[in-house]
Amino acid sequence: MGVNSHSFRVRYAETDQMGVVYHGNYAQYLEMGRVEWLRALGVTYKSMEDSGIMLPVISLHIDYKKSALYDDLLTVETQLTSRPLVKIEFDYKVFNEAGDLLATAHTVLAFMDKKTGRPIKCPEYILDKLED
Amino acid sequence: MGVNSHSFRVRYAETDQMGVVYHGNYAQYLEMGRVEWLRALGVTYKSMEDSGIMLPVISLHIDYKKSALYDDLLTVETQLTSRPLVKIEFDYKVFNEAGDLLATAHTVLAFMDKKTGRPIKCPEYILDKLED
Amino acid sequence: MGVNSHSFRVRYAETDQMGVVYHGNYAQYLEMGRVEWLRALGVTYKSMEDSGIMLPVISLHIDYKKSALYDDLLTVETQLTSRPLVKIEFDYKVFNEAGDLLATAHTVLAFMDKKTGRPIKCPEYILDKLED
Amino acid sequence: MGVNSHSFRVRYAETDQMGVVYHGNYAQYLEMGRVEWLRALGVTYKSMEDSGIMLPVISLHIDYKKSALYDDLLTVETQLTSRPLVKIEFDYKVFNEAGDLLATAHTVLAFMDKKTGRPIKCPEYILDKLED
Repeated sequence: MGVNSHSFRVRYAETDQMGVVYHGNYAQYLEMGRVEWLRALGVTYKSMEDSGIMLPVISLHIDYKKSALYDDLLTVETQLTSRPLVKIEFDYKVFNEAGDLLATAHTVLAFMDKKTGRPIKCPEYILDKLED
Repeated sequence: MGVNSHSFRVRYAETDQMGVVYHGNYAQYLEMGRVEWLRALGVTYKSMEDSGIMLPVISLHIDYKKSALYDDLLTVETQLTSRPLVKIEFDYKVFNEAGDLLATAHTVLAFMDKKTGRPIKCPEYILDKLED
Repeated sequence: MGVNSHSFRVRYAETDQMGVVYHGNYAQYLEMGRVEWLRALGVTYKSMEDSGIMLPVISLHIDYKKSALYDDLLTVETQLTSRPLVKIEFDYKVFNEAGDLLATAHTVLAFMDKKTGRPIKCPEYILDKLED
Repeated sequence: MGVNSHSFRVRYAETDQMGVVYHGNYAQYLEMGRVEWLRALGVTYKSMEDSGIMLPVISLHIDYKKSALYDDLLTVETQLTSRPLVKIEFDYKVFNEAGDLLATAHTVLAFMDKKTGRPIKCPEYILDKLED
C-alpha cells in the first residue's frame, strides 16, 4: 500500500483566464494518479474494465492550496487509504517541481459489475497483489 | 436544408490564460450546433445512436477570426452543405452577441454501423425529413 | 439567499466510455450554477473580475448518486450556505429531467484581490444585494 | 526543421461514449506536439509568452483515420512546414503504439504582441535557432 508518484506537464488547454490550472481539471490529474498506482501494482484499469468491472467515482474531495501554472511539471502522489472491499479509497497530494503542495484530495470509487450495474467486491487478484 | 441557430454562454472553464476561449473547445460548440440542427429536423442524435448508427467526425476544419470571451453569449449557425450519402457535411459560423463573426468551420461525419464499425448510408428517415 | 436553478443539456464531449458524464465535468456544472446564482442577484462574475476581484475555488466536494447521460437536460440548484465574509460557500444539487438527484456538492471560494493575490472581504455591494 | 516526437497516454476523461477519444481532444494533443517541438529547439512557449509574444491558433484542420482508445500510448509527430514569418505552420501525424496512423493535422498560428494584440514577425532568436 505504498505511494505511487506520477509526473506530467500542465497543458495550455488546462489553464483558465485566471492564468492558472482550472480547478476542475484536477479530477483528471487524480485519475492519472490512481491509474498509475494500479499499473505499478501490476493491473491496468483498461484490462479491469475489459474483464467486466467498472470503477465509477462516487465521491470527490479536493482542497486547493496553491495554483498550478502552465508548463509546470506536476507530480501526483497517490496512496490507498485502506484495504478495499466494495469501495476503494485514495488520498492524493499534488506538488509542483519546486516541491510546493498545490492540493490534497480524496476519492471514493465503487467496484461495479459492467453488465448488471450492481456493486461487487474488489476482485481477489487485486487483494492478492496488495498482500504481496 | 435551412440554417439552425443555437446560443449558449461561454463557461469559465473554456477560457485559457490568453483570456479567451481555448481554440480546441470550438469542437464542442460545433457539436452542439449540429445536434440542435438535427433536433430541429425532428431527430435526436441520441435516438440515432440508440438505433445502432454512429456518426464519428472524420474531418474538422476551423478558421478563427476573432476571440470569444468568458460569459459571451455565442451563437452557432449550422448549415447542411449537400444531401448526405455515406457522409454528412456541415458549415458553421460562430458569432458573439455583438454580431462579430468569430469563426467559420466545416466538418465531415460518416454514418457508421455501431455493431460492425462499417460505413453505411444515411438512414432513409433522415433523407425523408430533408425533403419535407 | 434563495435557490437558483439553471438548466442545460449534456454535451457528447462530456461523456466518457462508461457511457455517462465524466465525473470531473461536474465542476463545470457547479460553476455554471453559481455564476447564474450571482446573475440572478444582479451581479455578473465577469464584471466582478473586471473590477479586480477574483474568486478561486479553494474546496470542492461532490457526492455522485446516479449517472447523467448524454443529451439529458440537467438542472443545477445552487444555494448560498451562509453570509459570505472572506469566503463564499455554496451547496448544489444536480437533477435530471425525471427529477432524479444525480449529485450533491459543496464548494468554498475565496475573495481575492487580482493585483496583490491576497484574500479580501466580500464586496459591500454583494452583501447589500443579499439583504434585499 | 526536423520532426519532433512526443508520446503520452490517453486519459479516461478524453474518451466519449463511442468508446474512443473525443475528436475535439486532438487539439490538445497537437498543442503538446508543437510545444515539445519548440522545447526541442531550445525555446519554451511559456518563456515566449512571458516575453510578451502570444501565438494564437488561427486555423486548425484535422483528418481522422482511425480511433484512439483509452490508455493507448500515442505519439504526435510535429513538423514545421516552412520558415515562419508572421505565421508559423505545422503538420502533425498521430500514431498509436502499434504504429497505426490515427490522424493527420495542420495548424496555422500567428505571432501576436501581447500588449497591442497586433500581429508581429517571428522573433529573431527563433529564426536563428532554425538555421543552426
